[in-house]
Amino acid sequence: MIDDNAVTAAVILIGDEVLSGRTADKNLQQIALFLAPQGISVIESRTIPDVHDTIVDTVNELRAKVTYVFTTGGIGPTHDDITADAIAAAFDVGIDVRADALEVIETWYAKTGTPLNESRKRMARIPEGASLIVNPVTGAPGIHMGNVFVMAGVPSITRGMLEDVAHRLEGGAVTQSRSVKGDNLREGDIAVALGEMQERFPQVSLGSYPYFLDLKDGEIRRGTHLVARATDAAALDSVIEEIAGLVEALGYTAQIDPVE
Amino acid sequence: MIDDNAVTAAVILIGDEVLSGRTADKNLQQIALFLAPQGISVIESRTIPDVHDTIVDTVNELRAKVTYVFTTGGIGPTHDDITADAIAAAFDVGIDVRADALEVIETWYAKTGTPLNESRKRMARIPEGASLIVNPVTGAPGIHMGNVFVMAGVPSITRGMLEDVAHRLEGGAVTQSRSVKGDNLREGDIAVALGEMQERFPQVSLGSYPYFLDLKDGEIRRGTHLVARATDAAALDSVIEEIAGLVEALGYTAQIDPVE
Repeated sequence: MIDDNAVTAAVILIGDEVLSGRTADKNLQQIALFLAPQGISVIESRTIPDVHDTIVDTVNELRAKVTYVFTTGGIGPTHDDITADAIAAAFDVGIDVRADALEVIETWYAKTGTPLNESRKRMARIPEGASLIVNPVTGAPGIHMGNVFVMAGVPSITRGMLEDVAHRLEGGAVTQSRSVKGDNLREGDIAVALGEMQERFPQVSLGSYPYFLDLKDGEIRRGTHLVARATDAAALDSVIEEIAGLVEALGYTAQIDPVE
Repeated sequence: MIDDNAVTAAVILIGDEVLSGRTADKNLQQIALFLAPQGISVIESRTIPDVHDTIVDTVNELRAKVTYVFTTGGIGPTHDDITADAIAAAFDVGIDVRADALEVIETWYAKTGTPLNESRKRMARIPEGASLIVNPVTGAPGIHMGNVFVMAGVPSITRGMLEDVAHRLEGGAVTQSRSVKGDNLREGDIAVALGEMQERFPQVSLGSYPYFLDLKDGEIRRGTHLVARATDAAALDSVIEEIAGLVEALGYTAQIDPVE
């Protein structure tokens, strides 16, 4: 469904704690939901460890492939925070403490009465040629270098940084999403008809997602969400109506979700 | 921290719905937590769209790189369920409806009184030479081909399939994890000491993870988790005691989390 004019993004989640299962990532979802209304589609995401060469290689592979790359994690004050250095290496530029970043951090810590020690100064290390991304939550800035946006791992900080990222992005046609929910409907009931509809509407992306809910009384409620995505609102409306008709014809109740 | 004897895994999450942000992935975390006690470390995860060539290329790149690959998503009955075909293409083998898989599905649907139509039969398409993974939740089997385990996207089904995967894995030395929590402690307070400790204990992986909790009364509780991971339990215990001492010396209360 990705055409040549599509504005695409890749997300790189950097952190051993996500790979070990200690932390459940929330950044991919919040970045994807933030980009979608701007007409930017995430087409790939990678979760990688805090390893210098891996970060460098992954950033270089993906920044050549998509319009925008977003990284999260590894820009704090500790020894395992190596993302800024890896970004400098990826772009083959130097990195050092920079006056503007240091001032941001000094001002922030002065306000909160926290001593500015050597490890906090590390957070002012900025690759040559990069611009800063405002961090309204904890002060230490993110980094914007080429088409790469380097943000924090803590989701609330990432969310704050995205506010200072939005105005730097040029979006494309906005992909809209609508869906029909069929309680008790099984994917296999509607699969053939849905596949046939996908052939007739190549400009719409159709997906089918079963769900199983454990209710409190021990019962399971199951059903299927049928989701259509497209930049063409009229085609989307036709498809959604047709899907709802199919679900009803199969003897189930079609619940058309409100327009998102 | 990954040595040559380490048993490694990669997770490939297949599905447009995760990339669009519609669905928050739960499979990476549950697979990582399932593998850890068996001494298998997830070293990379990728989230990719339902696109044939992308699945083929990603599977081939990662199966050459790690001990085991786990995929989730794309093995249901609908037109966008293309993972089984992509696995066959990745291994350059044929794929067709196979008698043993069809029997599993027929028996399952006979029990639940659901008609077995053409789209449900698609779920019996198995790449040549693969073995089946039991699906105790919805019947249609997963696929085990070479070092690749192909599982469902719905987390409860994936969880069920993992029970039939465990006995096929050869694990390595088990990485244990212990942690110290310091309420109000900031990463920057302890970063230098932690970096120095990391140099003295190269066999232990040290990480520092700040947290910010919105309490109900509108206050924010912040602090830092300090996490140590190692296969060497004695080294782990020494490190954790030393970290707790550091936190206390900085004037905070060190809460040593119970052994996981």
